[in-house]
Amino acid sequence: MAAPCRTAACLVLATFASEPAALGETVEQWGTFELALEGPADGNSFVDVSFSARFSSDGVSIEAGGFYDGDGAYRVRFLPERTGTWRYVTRSNRPELDGKTGDFAVTEPAAGGKNHGPVRVHGTFHFAYADGTPYRPLGTTCYAWTHQSEELEEQTLETLAAAPFNKVRMCVFPKRYTWNEDEPPRYPFAGTPPRTWTFTRFEPAFFRHLERRIGELRDLGIEADVILFHPYDKAHWGFDRMSDEDDDRYLRYVVGRLAAYRNVWWSLANEYDFMEAKEESDWDRLFGILVESDPYGHLRSIHNGYRLYNHRQPWVTHASIQNGSAAEDAARAVLYRDAYRKPIVLDEVKYEGDIPKRWGNLSAEEMVHRFWEGTVAGTYVTHGETLLHPSDVLWWSKGGRLRGESPERLAFLRDVLAAAPAAGIDPIDKWQHPEYGGQAGEFYLVYLGRQELKAWPFRLPKRGLAAGMRFRADVLDTWRGTVTPVEGEFTVREDDAYSFADVEGRAVPLPGRRWVAIRIQRVTEETE
Amino acid sequence: MAAPCRTAACLVLATFASEPAALGETVEQWGTFELALEGPADGNSFVDVSFSARFSSDGVSIEAGGFYDGDGAYRVRFLPERTGTWRYVTRSNRPELDGKTGDFAVTEPAAGGKNHGPVRVHGTFHFAYADGTPYRPLGTTCYAWTHQSEELEEQTLETLAAAPFNKVRMCVFPKRYTWNEDEPPRYPFAGTPPRTWTFTRFEPAFFRHLERRIGELRDLGIEADVILFHPYDKAHWGFDRMSDEDDDRYLRYVVGRLAAYRNVWWSLANEYDFMEAKEESDWDRLFGILVESDPYGHLRSIHNGYRLYNHRQPWVTHASIQNGSAAEDAARAVLYRDAYRKPIVLDEVKYEGDIPKRWGNLSAEEMVHRFWEGTVAGTYVTHGETLLHPSDVLWWSKGGRLRGESPERLAFLRDVLAAAPAAGIDPIDKWQHPEYGGQAGEFYLVYLGRQELKAWPFRLPKRGLAAGMRFRADVLDTWRGTVTPVEGEFTVREDDAYSFADVEGRAVPLPGRRWVAIRIQRVTEETE
Repeated sequence: MAAPCRTAACLVLATFASEPAALGETVEQWGTFELALEGPADGNSFVDVSFSARFSSDGVSIEAGGFYDGDGAYRVRFLPERTGTWRYVTRSNRPELDGKTGDFAVTEPAAGGKNHGPVRVHGTFHFAYADGTPYRPLGTTCYAWTHQSEELEEQTLETLAAAPFNKVRMCVFPKRYTWNEDEPPRYPFAGTPPRTWTFTRFEPAFFRHLERRIGELRDLGIEADVILFHPYDKAHWGFDRMSDEDDDRYLRYVVGRLAAYRNVWWSLANEYDFMEAKEESDWDRLFGILVESDPYGHLRSIHNGYRLYNHRQPWVTHASIQNGSAAEDAARAVLYRDAYRKPIVLDEVKYEGDIPKRWGNLSAEEMVHRFWEGTVAGTYVTHGETLLHPSDVLWWSKGGRLRGESPERLAFLRDVLAAAPAAGIDPIDKWQHPEYGGQAGEFYLVYLGRQELKAWPFRLPKRGLAAGMRFRADVLDTWRGTVTPVEGEFTVREDDAYSFADVEGRAVPLPGRRWVAIRIQRVTEETE
Repeated sequence: MAAPCRTAACLVLATFASEPAALGETVEQWGTFELALEGPADGNSFVDVSFSARFSSDGVSIEAGGFYDGDGAYRVRFLPERTGTWRYVTRSNRPELDGKTGDFAVTEPAAGGKNHGPVRVHGTFHFAYADGTPYRPLGTTCYAWTHQSEELEEQTLETLAAAPFNKVRMCVFPKRYTWNEDEPPRYPFAGTPPRTWTFTRFEPAFFRHLERRIGELRDLGIEADVILFHPYDKAHWGFDRMSDEDDDRYLRYVVGRLAAYRNVWWSLANEYDFMEAKEESDWDRLFGILVESDPYGHLRSIHNGYRLYNHRQPWVTHASIQNGSAAEDAARAVLYRDAYRKPIVLDEVKYEGDIPKRWGNLSAEEMVHRFWEGTVAGTYVTHGETLLHPSDVLWWSKGGRLRGESPERLAFLRDVLAAAPAAGIDPIDKWQHPEYGGQAGEFYLVYLGRQELKAWPFRLPKRGLAAGMRFRADVLDTWRGTVTPVEGEFTVREDDAYSFADVEGRAVPLPGRRWVAIRIQRVTEETE
């Protein structure tokens, strides 16, 4: 059914304005190539017109779904994962959109820039960008930040630019919940708020706005953990109880628009089990659509309320878990690694705040403490802030400014992790000494939490050790953000069947305060 | 290929001697019916002869695999799960064993006896016997007890008869490990110890002995958690590294012999991941054989060393987990329920003992404490004892006598559970208040562990409560085994968004000691 291009003028080739590549026929690896064609503007093109393109280069061929962007504009976007010349050919049930061909060059990302490609699972429990750079999630939560005023959204971006976070959990659909009951500026479907929608007609302006914000996060080096469904609607708009057919169409449309953004993660739902109109089999089906329609395999997860999804399913790339209790104790968090054998992201451990809800009134100290417990367990913790605000601008929902005391301490944690081995932090002796995380024999973080010790006898679980190995130690005050090197070195010998200790029985002197961690690094001839 | 019975004399019909039913044509429901035929004694009947029977009654038809028992004897056993008349017809590739028919009557079990049928999963996280009687696992561990002298084995049975345990973890294969390096009296295969075996020829005497012991456990009301493979061999006999074909044949043979014992559970392996010669796919395959060859669907699990199996697999009926750390804290144990949505049996939480291994030197107090933590988390804990002994008779391995101090305290726990609701103990507010187990609104166990309180303000998580409900409380000293009723009643009102408290702010007086639990039961007109 391929038809020749009838009017050469119908062809518009573009990359995104927010992408640093020049307009025209060149795009960076992991940038976004976009092909726009003019086509029918009558009828309902969202459902009547099929449109996609096959992109090929050097024996690799990828089919990307396109989408209708309103006003007769059809677009297909592509995320090139390798450099070189790529060729495309379009497919459509409409002749004017079918069989269009062209090619473009994909170049290496600018050196020293923020483009490291999409984040992938790395080494069972961790993540890395496609170029191999380690990615250590330090996420925050602004569920409805893209449903606010232009001014507030810009403020959120400014805040994020200065904050330590490299991931934001955010909802596609507007949210209706305590402290967030305004109607949003835009809706995803054509119709009349609050409840009269034509689910077969998307509202392109809504999605263009969302895309712009995701692109801005990308340019800040922040991953967008895009929440595709959520229960904070309760039939007010009804986006939480669409038909299966509407859900499926919506999901394909979102994937068609967003999958070519390298910083997109798919969070299929927030508190999926709180969505009354869906059953577990619906989520399995929706995951299937994500797998099938996203040719790049962006990260996929689903976040629970009370009942955890089966994160062992092969289509789940990492476990996104709500459970504050798990982050109170590394020995709890580590059990999820055992159960799921995937990266564990504790995507809701309660929030720093002062609201009269038990899930939103952690002290900043407790918030930071949970990050450290999760870290030494080899898991990743996500931040949120629910400090009351005179105009109800709570960061957790609307964004705005961070006012809590945890973010600057989390910046310290980020810096500590940036200096840790590329392999990441794993538990060293998971069921015996949960306070040790690191890489056995090379690097350790020993987190002491609420203990107020004056000294810590130098002792390491035996794995990876041999008599005579030498180590240096730093005392980290995780709250004050200080690093105090300990004088001299520790040399170890086997002390009992399970551990090595300093040959002279020396201890690490400590300040007698809470929230202390000890960083221990092996000294070799190379590191001296 | 059905052939008529050529010699009527070849037919021997029997139930087990240890089964109280009379010899002949009547067997109890959930008893064991056995059909024995004489057949070829030449060649290798273990592999050359196929033999099975189809049992039918009232539209239900079940195929049970038979087995060769040596000396020309072929047997097929059947566990009738309903009363009435059952008819069988045999199938074999040998005409003298093929097409034999007969019938027998299955009667109700004797009232007041120990026969409640096999144990099944009940209500997602719990167990019940087939007749509906709740089964609350309180297991112990005697890995190699059936590989000891007659005298020692009899002593083990005597001990078990007086102990609180209703499940024993036990290995089919002999075990070779510290404190247990003797050669066993019998081997499962024909051949010459230690390493020259004909894996295609089973040793019937070995299995007859095993069966006798399993039958004796059954008669004591104890489930046999039969461990089919284990790593405590390390190539000494080589039972830990047979070929796939030998493993599969062995498994079918064991199932053929044991599946008709109602008290059998299949534990596919102990520390499965420590078996160097097997990969995870081998375990999946072996589970498949269990599913296919056991027509009664006995409980199936697999126990880990360091790496947990995927207990979400549909062929796993309950999670059998080694992790001492999980039982130290109810908030840890409960995470397994979330992850697996199956009954959680913490089948190795370290042992009461004094061996110089960190997995075998718990104090009795710590052992009992772990049971209580696991209990209020809605999970089940298993006991083991590794107290040093002059002749190396450690209970955990060889059986003998229990010398520890935990069993009598576990008898107290058993009695407390026997008086709990049939629905079992579930967490009440799982991620907030792990110390509460029970059934919301009806029954609570609040376990206070190491806290040494003089009083406990009466407070319950709100689920299931309404203002004005009345409760009575008992103080349980879980170590001393005392129950102290608290005077009067507590009447609750809503106290905050998450809990109800006594209307007068009363507290439960406590003795200021560790290891206390509070039992709280609703008072209704019916219970007054």
